[in-house]
Amino acid sequence: MRHQVVIVGGGPSGLLLGQLLHKRGIDAVVLERKTRDYVLGRIRAGVLETGLVSLMEEAGVADRLHREGYVHDGTQIAFGGEMFHLDFKALTGKPVIVYGQTEVTRDLYDAREAVGARTEFNVDHVVIHDADSNHPYVTYDQHGESHRIDCDFIAGCDGFHGVSRQAIPLSVRREYEKTYPFGWLGVLSRTPPVNDELIYANSDRGFALCSMRNENLSRYYVQCALSDHPEDWTDAAFWSELKRRLPEEVAGHLVTGPTIEKSIAPLRSFVTEPMRWGRLFLCGDAAHIVPPTGAKGLNTAASDVHYLYQGLVQHYLDQDNEGIERYSERALLRVWKAERFSWWFSSLLHRYPHQSPFDLKMQQAEIAFLRDNSSQQQAFAENYVGLPY
Amino acid sequence: MRHQVVIVGGGPSGLLLGQLLHKRGIDAVVLERKTRDYVLGRIRAGVLETGLVSLMEEAGVADRLHREGYVHDGTQIAFGGEMFHLDFKALTGKPVIVYGQTEVTRDLYDAREAVGARTEFNVDHVVIHDADSNHPYVTYDQHGESHRIDCDFIAGCDGFHGVSRQAIPLSVRREYEKTYPFGWLGVLSRTPPVNDELIYANSDRGFALCSMRNENLSRYYVQCALSDHPEDWTDAAFWSELKRRLPEEVAGHLVTGPTIEKSIAPLRSFVTEPMRWGRLFLCGDAAHIVPPTGAKGLNTAASDVHYLYQGLVQHYLDQDNEGIERYSERALLRVWKAERFSWWFSSLLHRYPHQSPFDLKMQQAEIAFLRDNSSQQQAFAENYVGLPY
Repeated sequence: MRHQVVIVGGGPSGLLLGQLLHKRGIDAVVLERKTRDYVLGRIRAGVLETGLVSLMEEAGVADRLHREGYVHDGTQIAFGGEMFHLDFKALTGKPVIVYGQTEVTRDLYDAREAVGARTEFNVDHVVIHDADSNHPYVTYDQHGESHRIDCDFIAGCDGFHGVSRQAIPLSVRREYEKTYPFGWLGVLSRTPPVNDELIYANSDRGFALCSMRNENLSRYYVQCALSDHPEDWTDAAFWSELKRRLPEEVAGHLVTGPTIEKSIAPLRSFVTEPMRWGRLFLCGDAAHIVPPTGAKGLNTAASDVHYLYQGLVQHYLDQDNEGIERYSERALLRVWKAERFSWWFSSLLHRYPHQSPFDLKMQQAEIAFLRDNSSQQQAFAENYVGLPY
Repeated sequence: MRHQVVIVGGGPSGLLLGQLLHKRGIDAVVLERKTRDYVLGRIRAGVLETGLVSLMEEAGVADRLHREGYVHDGTQIAFGGEMFHLDFKALTGKPVIVYGQTEVTRDLYDAREAVGARTEFNVDHVVIHDADSNHPYVTYDQHGESHRIDCDFIAGCDGFHGVSRQAIPLSVRREYEKTYPFGWLGVLSRTPPVNDELIYANSDRGFALCSMRNENLSRYYVQCALSDHPEDWTDAAFWSELKRRLPEEVAGHLVTGPTIEKSIAPLRSFVTEPMRWGRLFLCGDAAHIVPPTGAKGLNTAASDVHYLYQGLVQHYLDQDNEGIERYSERALLRVWKAERFSWWFSSLLHRYPHQSPFDLKMQQAEIAFLRDNSSQQQAFAENYVGLPY
């Protein structure tokens, strides 16, 4: 079996890359370890930058997104019992679109099926071979049988725990990591969102976030101890804690109800360098993780997809390898910017175990500067809606 | 003896306040622990914000400053072996003026003498009495005799180690402090400055700063260990270390020579709240310290002087106490902004003992964002030339 490109991982970045390549006549197969239903069962944030939306449009899968997504022209920051508004649209001319990552994935699977592109589910023991040669190939097991696919290029879109990154020898890999001394306890509830924009809250009791899926599906988060277990948090305890972290005017409007889902996620910053090894390219979580503050995860994966897509098109259509040779450099330049923003925005909003009274004052001064200084707001908004590719 | 205002401390903030008050017919005495020559022997940085320059103009002591000071329209940041320029004048319409703090102090002493205002030197055992009553007074010893001055108000301009802050009971004081795990080794040398603007350098070997007094007097600094002693640093070792922290193009132009002065200063962030207790007002270092990165020390003292001067004028000329009652609140609002900037700018440029590879990458990404993003440059420039009073 032979394909031009093997995409390891059937999450949103792998699927988006596949669909973009298909549109340009480049043939790619997607290998996914789980089933389609499993992938579509994973709940992830969904705040889409214009860059990702443009890629979805180019891939021809943006119709439902534009129909059902929510255009957010700004966000609210709660601080010291009050809120201030950051107007992205006024500051940058761009909004963000709230549209679940699960929906992005579903749209991409539907499009992939509609064009008859090959996706293999339930693949196991994926091994990447000879990525540093001109004849790479991938082997895997499926339903008890072994398979081999020869290819020109391999896109490693299989996430933080995937095999792709591990295929790059440790001797050429440099990894950078920061773990945060807290987690996010998140709930999904069939209640109307408390606000029509997201609310990021810095409070004495720790961070909180009011987000949403749609008019009757809300997503709320509170910073919690890493040692907490979701089952220790009753719904009542969650709502009570959330309210205490929000300004009174907001807490008073919060509609509570039974939660559908409740989970705790740790926060991590992670980057591996380089993002290319021979004919293997890492995309998205396979190469980097950001804390969820500011919703840069999927959007940064999309910027990788953009650079890789451009590079592969250049290779196949223009017989020019410049784009694939500089993929790692270009992707990382933007990755580090997103890492910086996510780290900074996380530092701005959370309580840290060893924060001194002076440290807390600096955090407050930093938020006050964002509230009061239009240049700082401008820089924030440019990052939030997404820096240019 | 009676004066309207007793100013404890004959450094630049006390003298500036005295001169401003004198111009408005408000009578103030200045008490200084040392001699005039001692005060004028202290070498301090001298990068003046427009706000301080305006106060000097209002006090009628800006002639020499305008004649001999150096207008700097921007600064250079060295990073990764290269330099980038931040153009304050283009970004904010304002420059800064390089003019030694010692010269500011000298001009103020000269003006004070010219108008015959009373300054007492060599005062000892200054004690502030009944500052929380309507009849405060100050006692001190001088040449073996005890003195008492009754007054309406006391301005505590006697620096971090002065008695003024200590006169506020601990029960009402809140102090915030951060010490930095390094110092600045500074030299003064009779050599032409390597550049006509300041160069702030982030390097693998730690921070360096190229500053100046005049065309033939340079001031250079390198980050050093707190355990270092100036006498352990030969001139040759200093110049060699400085060169290694500067881009090659700069190091190649550096003119070295014997140093006139060599000292190590620790870096500290400190704020006490409130800045008013009854009829006692703290100004400058008596209330707050910033690390020298960004030269906010004297300039922040000047903003205190501005608020206190306005408050006293309002009291004496308009019979309105609003300004003195809100002095602490107003002064602190701007103090915390300067503290934030100085802390942030220090964090941006120094090597820290426990910086992880990820932390270093974040520092680099933060500098790169400043280099590449015009909104971030704008916010930086607004802070550097001085936020509005």
